[in-house]
Amino acid sequence: MTVQSKSNIRPSSVTTGPIAGSRRIYSSPEGRPDIRVPFREIALDPSAGEEPYRAYDCSGVYTDPSVTIDLEAGLPPIRREWIAKRGFDRLQPRAVRPEDNGNIGDDKLVPACPADHPVYGGRPGQLVTQYEFARAGIITDEMIYVAHRENMGRAAMIAGAEARIADGESFGAEIPAFITPEFVRDEIARGRAIIPANINHPELEPVIIGRNFLVKINANIGNSAVTSGVAEEVEKLVWAIRWGSDTVMDLSTGRNIHNIRGWIMRNSPVPIGTVPIYQALEKVDGDPTKLDWEVFKDTLIEQAEQGVDYFTIHAGVRLRYVPLTAKRVTGIVSRGGSIMAKWCLSRHKESFLYERFDEICDIMRKYDVSFSLGDGLRPGSNADANDAAQFGELETLGELTKIAWDKGCQVMIEGPGHVPMHKIKVNMEKQLRECGEAPFYTLGPLTTDIAPGYDHITSAIGAAMIGWYGTAMLCYVTPKEHLGLPDRDDVKTGVITYRIAAHAADLAKGHPAAKLRDDAISRARFEFRWEDQFNLSLDPDTARQFHDETLPKEAHKVAHFCSMCGPKFCSMQITQDLRVEAERMAGMEAKSAEFEQGGKQIYLPQQAAE
Amino acid sequence: MTVQSKSNIRPSSVTTGPIAGSRRIYSSPEGRPDIRVPFREIALDPSAGEEPYRAYDCSGVYTDPSVTIDLEAGLPPIRREWIAKRGFDRLQPRAVRPEDNGNIGDDKLVPACPADHPVYGGRPGQLVTQYEFARAGIITDEMIYVAHRENMGRAAMIAGAEARIADGESFGAEIPAFITPEFVRDEIARGRAIIPANINHPELEPVIIGRNFLVKINANIGNSAVTSGVAEEVEKLVWAIRWGSDTVMDLSTGRNIHNIRGWIMRNSPVPIGTVPIYQALEKVDGDPTKLDWEVFKDTLIEQAEQGVDYFTIHAGVRLRYVPLTAKRVTGIVSRGGSIMAKWCLSRHKESFLYERFDEICDIMRKYDVSFSLGDGLRPGSNADANDAAQFGELETLGELTKIAWDKGCQVMIEGPGHVPMHKIKVNMEKQLRECGEAPFYTLGPLTTDIAPGYDHITSAIGAAMIGWYGTAMLCYVTPKEHLGLPDRDDVKTGVITYRIAAHAADLAKGHPAAKLRDDAISRARFEFRWEDQFNLSLDPDTARQFHDETLPKEAHKVAHFCSMCGPKFCSMQITQDLRVEAERMAGMEAKSAEFEQGGKQIYLPQQAAE
Repeated sequence: MTVQSKSNIRPSSVTTGPIAGSRRIYSSPEGRPDIRVPFREIALDPSAGEEPYRAYDCSGVYTDPSVTIDLEAGLPPIRREWIAKRGFDRLQPRAVRPEDNGNIGDDKLVPACPADHPVYGGRPGQLVTQYEFARAGIITDEMIYVAHRENMGRAAMIAGAEARIADGESFGAEIPAFITPEFVRDEIARGRAIIPANINHPELEPVIIGRNFLVKINANIGNSAVTSGVAEEVEKLVWAIRWGSDTVMDLSTGRNIHNIRGWIMRNSPVPIGTVPIYQALEKVDGDPTKLDWEVFKDTLIEQAEQGVDYFTIHAGVRLRYVPLTAKRVTGIVSRGGSIMAKWCLSRHKESFLYERFDEICDIMRKYDVSFSLGDGLRPGSNADANDAAQFGELETLGELTKIAWDKGCQVMIEGPGHVPMHKIKVNMEKQLRECGEAPFYTLGPLTTDIAPGYDHITSAIGAAMIGWYGTAMLCYVTPKEHLGLPDRDDVKTGVITYRIAAHAADLAKGHPAAKLRDDAISRARFEFRWEDQFNLSLDPDTARQFHDETLPKEAHKVAHFCSMCGPKFCSMQITQDLRVEAERMAGMEAKSAEFEQGGKQIYLPQQAAE
Repeated sequence: MTVQSKSNIRPSSVTTGPIAGSRRIYSSPEGRPDIRVPFREIALDPSAGEEPYRAYDCSGVYTDPSVTIDLEAGLPPIRREWIAKRGFDRLQPRAVRPEDNGNIGDDKLVPACPADHPVYGGRPGQLVTQYEFARAGIITDEMIYVAHRENMGRAAMIAGAEARIADGESFGAEIPAFITPEFVRDEIARGRAIIPANINHPELEPVIIGRNFLVKINANIGNSAVTSGVAEEVEKLVWAIRWGSDTVMDLSTGRNIHNIRGWIMRNSPVPIGTVPIYQALEKVDGDPTKLDWEVFKDTLIEQAEQGVDYFTIHAGVRLRYVPLTAKRVTGIVSRGGSIMAKWCLSRHKESFLYERFDEICDIMRKYDVSFSLGDGLRPGSNADANDAAQFGELETLGELTKIAWDKGCQVMIEGPGHVPMHKIKVNMEKQLRECGEAPFYTLGPLTTDIAPGYDHITSAIGAAMIGWYGTAMLCYVTPKEHLGLPDRDDVKTGVITYRIAAHAADLAKGHPAAKLRDDAISRARFEFRWEDQFNLSLDPDTARQFHDETLPKEAHKVAHFCSMCGPKFCSMQITQDLRVEAERMAGMEAKSAEFEQGGKQIYLPQQAAE
């Protein structure tokens, strides 16, 4: 199902309706019926004794058929009341200027999103950010929301949670068996987790990013000067979150970026991140040497007022590090990093982002925009991994983290990039050490350079590993990486691939809820409940389609084989047959053993055949 | 280009012609012009100072336009002379019986491949297997061949090889900087590597499988009773090796399997593996309880005479282990494992594969068929990973390895399966310990169960990791795993995905040649040599197609940007600009330093800006 908007130059359609076999449900924490946390409930075959499975859901109300989607009105502002009671000043918003949209002619200007959007700002001394509330010992509504969300809506500890944690290897993370709002508060106060949640983004469904929570993923969208427009970008947002992207970065660099961002913000239930230097560069006609603090500051305010939840700030690209990249095989591969390096070198001056960092903190704190401290010197090839430039910048990011915390800001740290497997772990260890355990947010890393067209896979390997080691959020890489702008199919492939990496990491860390889904799908697989297997998978549509390519009939949905092995060679069917036999024999042996040992012997199946 | 065969019921066409941007070349070891080892030479832009890049090539003469492909005549028997001088007996081949092809009617019978195929067998006491030659201190032609192949045809050590080895982490592997035939012999004699090379497969281009060599991959092909026929299977073989599969397993289970196998053997330049129990089961009408030693023995001889290079033998599925699977979430998921478990349990007898293992060794030694000791009890879900059944079987495989070595056979060991990341390493460690360092050959492992349709990715994560830890060969998993029989596209996706995993492992282990390709493609990327980047990639066609989707013009092949970032935001272009600036400044500083310190100061680029 698609939803049409009224104007043909406005976002024309987005994908709505539930994911196959599931429905969006809401669950409220004890005593807070006003907080409605979304989940995706997957119906399973009750005749198999299966309860419906409850999955994390970041798709927004786009998957809720009871909600009418109106892109012009924007999403329901579920945080409005929570924010209102904090008493922020209502601001006179900064006026939009022609350069905000690249000085584009009226005939090509994307109209602003008409959704109602009052703008607020915190005062000095007032508690504004989640970090400030947490440090003050106050549990916010957002914290209650994410605690319930991380617990998959369960009101009590899941059976076996402690055993599953003990069975994992979390490299020093401290994942609890049950997440309380107080635990969330404490993690945020310690700087170990963030809830990116601009006070001007009331449509947000809060999400927590930290090593002791479920591993999150980010999808990048955004037009470039070469291709893509507003309709595609809003649909990419909805499409990315449909398949499981926890946050979305809008990396647009062409014209109309202010207005496109407005449409994205008002229609996004997930945190939106941006790289403000991109727009600042547009305002100075693409010449990095013309950048200055004033245009950058103006851009920060512009975007913060729109409601952007986190900013990538490349303040670690210091003048002294730039020459360290001169002998690299691939130089500087971060766009923001190369812009700032060029600025520093052309003026032979220290980066204004570094020198003005205090002021940046003050602006970001005012709206609770979280820092995503950019790794502008990340390696762009295996050859450059873990070099002096990369690690020098990481040390500076650690220094800046402490400043940002002192200023009351939430902080996460961006990481590489291209890193061979044996050099990944040291990245995590150094990041934790240098940055006081602030959440790590990595791009991949790509474990080899030789597979353009498949870099979702080269990077999923590295992403799963670094997620296991402790990275809190994984930025996806699509099959188009290094080759072109991802389209809709690429976005989905990237998101599903990174959901795999994040989930593999959760499993290995011993996250208490992660394994439940694997067990549920494995039971469905073993019992030939094909529909349950499809619906429990990350991408039910593809699983079903692949199955049906060779066995399309409805009767095959209950068949005890698939086309891979055919009916005679299905190991699972053979096992089911022999299980009946084994249980019969085991039962006889057990009864006999029970008799001999006065009933104290616990049944051990291996006795059956010995 | 495709090649037609004469008969329309015979394999109708296979893909031929070079992979884009490359050509098949041959290189001979010093003093052995008769040994012609193939490589794939990728032409790079000479104006950029790049030499052609030489890649490993397992595609056979299908990519050599100078060779006329005739599927009915089979491939040139390049090993015929080497084998002939060993003086084996020419045998009267076992007569083909109707049950070999599933008693299919004449109208549906695939005709036998008419290629000339004399059958040989070794005598007791004669040196037959590569293991026996190695133990006797004799370097075979196959050993010389693989040494040159592993060195990428280089006659001397590659510059920087030792540094790259030192930079890696190989977990106790002993990868040399330059591979000599004597090193190959020694590794085989120690049981740490195998060259699967049936004396009845003279068309084989030898390949070595071992922890101290390049990580290899295997692709499974084969029809099932439900779908696929001979034409598709031969094309799948050619297609799989085109994209980089080092060995291929024919897992056919339907009718016509004897004759289809004949076509595959005569037209395969790579080692072919099979699971003889599948065909044995066909001979007893699919009822495992009717299997016996005689029908199995007959099948071993039948397939060994055809030239199969390695057999999966599930001799570790002992009666005592079967009940250990009773409480598993997914029971037994190996086809061979479930067949043998059913046999054992129904008769309440020890497996005839285990009890007759000596005799199996004698047969396999006679033709030099290598063992691939099957893990019939591998886990089929994360829940069952590393359990008592799996590890019990692995201990038995260790016991059998020593027996097979005593009998003169080459041995590798199959491994899992479904294993979460944190439980992978112990699999490798236990395998090395239990099986005396015999090569490990794993299926994935899949690191989560929840992504059917994407199990090439869930498993590539595990495959890359276990390859790094020491697995010698990785059996691919395609996107169709758990859902259906892979088609041509799935085979390619699986092979490329596993080439990524194997290469990522080689890089992490510090294989001295692996990083050269990453560096070459990274230079091409940084210098906007798009054609070089496409051609150096694992799949040039896909890389080029993805690029051209948004920037199709020839002029874009030299453009200093792609559609992802557009011209203004290309970090690599900005870096190139600033590198010019940095070098100018560094030059000035260096000259100044040189002057001050009497010319002894080595240029350090970071001085430029400090």
